[in-house]
Amino acid sequence: MTRSNGRNSDQLRPLTITTQTNKYAEGSVLIEMGDTKVIVTATVDEKVPPFLKGQGKGWVTAEYSMLPRATQTRNQREAARGKLTGRTMEIQRLIGRALRSVVNLQALGERSITLDCDVIQADGGTRTASITGAFVAMAFAINKIALQHKLAVFPITDYLAAISVGVVGDKALLDLNYEEDSKAKVDMNVVMTGGGAFVELQGTGEERPFTRRELDELLGLGEKGIYELIAVQKEVLGPIALKIPSGQPGQEV
Amino acid sequence: MTRSNGRNSDQLRPLTITTQTNKYAEGSVLIEMGDTKVIVTATVDEKVPPFLKGQGKGWVTAEYSMLPRATQTRNQREAARGKLTGRTMEIQRLIGRALRSVVNLQALGERSITLDCDVIQADGGTRTASITGAFVAMAFAINKIALQHKLAVFPITDYLAAISVGVVGDKALLDLNYEEDSKAKVDMNVVMTGGGAFVELQGTGEERPFTRRELDELLGLGEKGIYELIAVQKEVLGPIALKIPSGQPGQEV
Amino acid sequence: MTRSNGRNSDQLRPLTITTQTNKYAEGSVLIEMGDTKVIVTATVDEKVPPFLKGQGKGWVTAEYSMLPRATQTRNQREAARGKLTGRTMEIQRLIGRALRSVVNLQALGERSITLDCDVIQADGGTRTASITGAFVAMAFAINKIALQHKLAVFPITDYLAAISVGVVGDKALLDLNYEEDSKAKVDMNVVMTGGGAFVELQGTGEERPFTRRELDELLGLGEKGIYELIAVQKEVLGPIALKIPSGQPGQEV
Amino acid sequence: MTRSNGRNSDQLRPLTITTQTNKYAEGSVLIEMGDTKVIVTATVDEKVPPFLKGQGKGWVTAEYSMLPRATQTRNQREAARGKLTGRTMEIQRLIGRALRSVVNLQALGERSITLDCDVIQADGGTRTASITGAFVAMAFAINKIALQHKLAVFPITDYLAAISVGVVGDKALLDLNYEEDSKAKVDMNVVMTGGGAFVELQGTGEERPFTRRELDELLGLGEKGIYELIAVQKEVLGPIALKIPSGQPGQEV
Amino acid sequence: MTRSNGRNSDQLRPLTITTQTNKYAEGSVLIEMGDTKVIVTATVDEKVPPFLKGQGKGWVTAEYSMLPRATQTRNQREAARGKLTGRTMEIQRLIGRALRSVVNLQALGERSITLDCDVIQADGGTRTASITGAFVAMAFAINKIALQHKLAVFPITDYLAAISVGVVGDKALLDLNYEEDSKAKVDMNVVMTGGGAFVELQGTGEERPFTRRELDELLGLGEKGIYELIAVQKEVLGPIALKIPSGQPGQEV
Amino acid sequence: MTRSNGRNSDQLRPLTITTQTNKYAEGSVLIEMGDTKVIVTATVDEKVPPFLKGQGKGWVTAEYSMLPRATQTRNQREAARGKLTGRTMEIQRLIGRALRSVVNLQALGERSITLDCDVIQADGGTRTASITGAFVAMAFAINKIALQHKLAVFPITDYLAAISVGVVGDKALLDLNYEEDSKAKVDMNVVMTGGGAFVELQGTGEERPFTRRELDELLGLGEKGIYELIAVQKEVLGPIALKIPSGQPGQEV
Repeated sequence: MTRSNGRNSDQLRPLTITTQTNKYAEGSVLIEMGDTKVIVTATVDEKVPPFLKGQGKGWVTAEYSMLPRATQTRNQREAARGKLTGRTMEIQRLIGRALRSVVNLQALGERSITLDCDVIQADGGTRTASITGAFVAMAFAINKIALQHKLAVFPITDYLAAISVGVVGDKALLDLNYEEDSKAKVDMNVVMTGGGAFVELQGTGEERPFTRRELDELLGLGEKGIYELIAVQKEVLGPIALKIPSGQPGQEV
Repeated sequence: MTRSNGRNSDQLRPLTITTQTNKYAEGSVLIEMGDTKVIVTATVDEKVPPFLKGQGKGWVTAEYSMLPRATQTRNQREAARGKLTGRTMEIQRLIGRALRSVVNLQALGERSITLDCDVIQADGGTRTASITGAFVAMAFAINKIALQHKLAVFPITDYLAAISVGVVGDKALLDLNYEEDSKAKVDMNVVMTGGGAFVELQGTGEERPFTRRELDELLGLGEKGIYELIAVQKEVLGPIALKIPSGQPGQEV
Repeated sequence: MTRSNGRNSDQLRPLTITTQTNKYAEGSVLIEMGDTKVIVTATVDEKVPPFLKGQGKGWVTAEYSMLPRATQTRNQREAARGKLTGRTMEIQRLIGRALRSVVNLQALGERSITLDCDVIQADGGTRTASITGAFVAMAFAINKIALQHKLAVFPITDYLAAISVGVVGDKALLDLNYEEDSKAKVDMNVVMTGGGAFVELQGTGEERPFTRRELDELLGLGEKGIYELIAVQKEVLGPIALKIPSGQPGQEV
Repeated sequence: MTRSNGRNSDQLRPLTITTQTNKYAEGSVLIEMGDTKVIVTATVDEKVPPFLKGQGKGWVTAEYSMLPRATQTRNQREAARGKLTGRTMEIQRLIGRALRSVVNLQALGERSITLDCDVIQADGGTRTASITGAFVAMAFAINKIALQHKLAVFPITDYLAAISVGVVGDKALLDLNYEEDSKAKVDMNVVMTGGGAFVELQGTGEERPFTRRELDELLGLGEKGIYELIAVQKEVLGPIALKIPSGQPGQEV
Repeated sequence: MTRSNGRNSDQLRPLTITTQTNKYAEGSVLIEMGDTKVIVTATVDEKVPPFLKGQGKGWVTAEYSMLPRATQTRNQREAARGKLTGRTMEIQRLIGRALRSVVNLQALGERSITLDCDVIQADGGTRTASITGAFVAMAFAINKIALQHKLAVFPITDYLAAISVGVVGDKALLDLNYEEDSKAKVDMNVVMTGGGAFVELQGTGEERPFTRRELDELLGLGEKGIYELIAVQKEVLGPIALKIPSGQPGQEV
Repeated sequence: MTRSNGRNSDQLRPLTITTQTNKYAEGSVLIEMGDTKVIVTATVDEKVPPFLKGQGKGWVTAEYSMLPRATQTRNQREAARGKLTGRTMEIQRLIGRALRSVVNLQALGERSITLDCDVIQADGGTRTASITGAFVAMAFAINKIALQHKLAVFPITDYLAAISVGVVGDKALLDLNYEEDSKAKVDMNVVMTGGGAFVELQGTGEERPFTRRELDELLGLGEKGIYELIAVQKEVLGPIALKIPSGQPGQEV
């Protein structure tokens, strides 16, 4: 089976992460995976949500949105509808949860980081690109706090990236674009740390259920993709990369 | 490690499924897993949502809600807040998607089935109990349509049940209650068919990421739980059980 | 005229009040009047709404909801609509007002009691069953506070129950079920205390106006029903019943 | 007991009904009862709500609102809050139901009449003044349709007015102003036809329950007030008054 | 060209401002310009919005609404729609901004004035009539505060009025009524001070763009109208008028 | 007075319009004026809103939004608030109205064009940049329809651009950035056609009213800016530019 753009089944799309794209935000990136493009900004706020007040801990949260014409046909704005769709809520809960898993909230202190992920063009994998990009934007923002000598310990505990995998026809594929995703029989999002452990695993049998053997194959592809993504993250982070510890793949965490 | 109620790590809580609990609904059950209690009704409507009109296919969807005092402290009603929480949206999307995976929508014809899952007492595992119960309520409702000779083929293609598993301390456990769930380091919901294939897999490293070895152990527990749940489903379905095919565990689907 | 289920015109439907049905709530009942079934929970909160703060007085309020398939055809959830219907608002205001009329809010102290009335099956008279059941749930909850020695005086000042009456054809009937209610010409809800005085009286000429003579006949039926309901309340309250004073019917209050 | 403005206990406040106050509406009045002032417009629409389509019947409905500074302290606009209060919903349902009780909807044909009741100054009794005024506005609007020869029968079947009564101190009073209403122990709204029959009766024991004897006394006062209101309605309706039949007080309907 | 009511192109409609029309509000007027009628109330509140707290400055804000039948066909209430239209928001922002421009907020002290502009009949020019009327209501309210010796300096710094002008056919007209407005090619709202300077200028080429020459002509008409409006304001303000300074037309401000 | 970036008082910021930035939209641009950056997409839909159905005319409308961190401090998303702010509504109404003024809706036929203006970085003048950019995106989209031979006449009747001007200190300035805008005493947005006529003029005396002389000066600056903007539009439109007629500046339209 040949993929639409000549990719191998275990090959990522071309990936670019442009950093510091916004002059106001504490951290910002434009992440492009093939034709999927997401602007991520990280905002630091020197306070925490009410449920955390006075506990000396920080918070990391995310919001996700697509511009109306990020997709082939125009979608109604959620602001005009007056409420978020279930899909948006699900995605932004996932992004926030994933990022918090690699942040020592105690070490962050009573401050919040909000990751705004705005999809300006969508061609599959927008939620995983958001996570991969948000990690970089967050690292820049936390580094900025660190440079102000406000942190005793660097609060990021490991790298974090995410990728989609799926079964199209009978073939397991890495990094599905929209066309592949829309005919996938099985669809899975994998979020992993630099240490090779799982942070989130969400698999859905869209067209039919899937077996253990298929699961194993998909996880293998995901693992490969994640390592490549993290390699790019390290590169664009430059000197900040050195501050982030990374477990060894396959090791117990 | 001893579990709060003397259960083994691979043991389900006591399970009761009471059928036909509502005199109006086409199908209805009260499912009780330990102290978690969910009322599920299945409503048949002889029309489909706009996006499916004229395609000769049916639809299955779900709504989920908790009574305000289903939990230890009272929660504000979503009707009073004026909107659904992200958690509710995520859960009802999951339930609907899971049930559709074992229904031949073509065979159902242009009609909809709505599964209303109302949690009257919550002690962990409300979303998985909703799926397990909703499958039974849906089977009763579809059987009712079948008895009216409106269906050429019985549209349910396999059994379906769901269970939660997780890592508490360093131990993998089956069917977490609320107390266990709130201190779980890893939390996973498994939805499987009677044929032993996965329909949904959602694992989250709440306190720390998890390894492949842990994943395998959790999936093993989940599989065991699902088989026991499906055995109860077959029993309460009585003669309807015979109309539902079931794959063999471990077989390719 | 024979009623659908062989009842006399002045006869209540079979009534069951099951108490302490929820393991978390301070008070809870399942009230069944014929096929009308309502779950009521009473939640005690050690604070009051803003408008009462610092006045040393307590508050009693109610919320009312029907499960979507409590009725013959499924109703859209109010949480999905994004707002309460006028009917729901009217009913929950009535329930709260009625219960407050038999509570000495000063004696209750700065705490709130919320009565959640969730109709799981509706066959007429859901608002009156809610009031009758909520009184019992509230008594259990207040007794729980009393047992913690937080109250100088038991704050419930009298019994309280409610019933519907109406004119069907030309006949005044007690306790209308849905079928009777939907063809009633006159419809009236009566809320009374143990002392035989009125707390609320809401009569509507649905099909035609009604005369003073009809009003008198309906009030007579209502009074009879209320006494029978209160007798059941006393029974299920057991020893708590002794703490609640009750005026004599017909006496000035 | 002397009332704040020297009124007798069975005396209405000064009443003025100014007709045709709006140049666009099919019917309109400004009703003033003491310092309570309500603008009512009646709008005729040549169609009916969806649930009545194709049945050859008409519809009468009402909306109620208070200007923010109709009261002593300013109230937030419901449009700014984004939803109607329970009080508003309750009142507009009452007004619509009351007016429909004296309209032959079959004779009205497939058209709707909307009564907009906007309180520009509130001093007690705004819902009853709205009903009394809306009857006149509706009569003008229906007469306008009749003059276009669109109606075979004049669809108004009787007069309709409403008044509040209550117990203040130990005294039953007619037509409470705000000051009296806020200290009333019992509060009742009475809606009656020209024939002396009840359309709505809503009594609430605000401070304490009330007895049958008190109920009888309040109904007597209400009846007296209603007759006086209807006399004024007849006067301002002029020749239209002749088209509206009126039962005899005390007669069976 | 003759105008519908025989007016000259530079002639205002008959104007009446009735003051103190509401017994509760600190200031109130009914302003009538031809058939456009607006009730304005001014409410004084001894606190400011959160963003101004502790700055020793006051605030002036406005809300605007039309009764449903203020217009030829009935409009849905914004309270029923659940949100304000863009038109309403635009208008109430304009009114508030305009009034603040002639109030010394420092001199007002930490208190708010809310101007509620409720259009009871609309025949064009409702936003400009609201501004002209609100100025008078505000002056009465501020004078009331001044009479309580709470103000060191009278905080109103100049007169303020507003008028619409437009091009109908090829003719520039002052004070358009609804009929003229709906066929206007160019539409402009002018808000000016007593000193003859502009506070707001909003011109729209509805049917076609407009030239500098047309702009000049429209501004001339507007200026003339404003002077006449301010003359009436002075008259109805009586002794309060003396407290308000007024620049000289044409002078630099 | 020297401007923050050495600009003359009548000098625009550096302007870039990048075209066709979105692979799905019928027209798209990224417009950058200094640090203000707006993504505009034009979506063609082969139907019109309900109020225009069957009239053979088209429609042009706009939506406007800012990413949460487009500004110095993060703003709450309107989708999360559940409603649009008044500012957003005002701006998107302005953009739509301005664009419609240079489109022959009859010639467009029964189709709609939606301009989505999403501000990714805001440094003053976002609404005027949106209009200037949206004109180009719209021209590309309409040209695409024209190339499909669906249009008898090219429906764009003139060029259109917008710019802000204002008085800072005592100096009239062209194209204010955020810093200048926030201290401006007078603020004006000017929308003009290629023919030099006004489409919209919105001037506000933020800190003080403004005189006729100031108005004239501001209009002069605006005119100069608009000509320069339109020159850039012509360049980026390439061959499409030839299809758009342009009046002569100063001529009567």
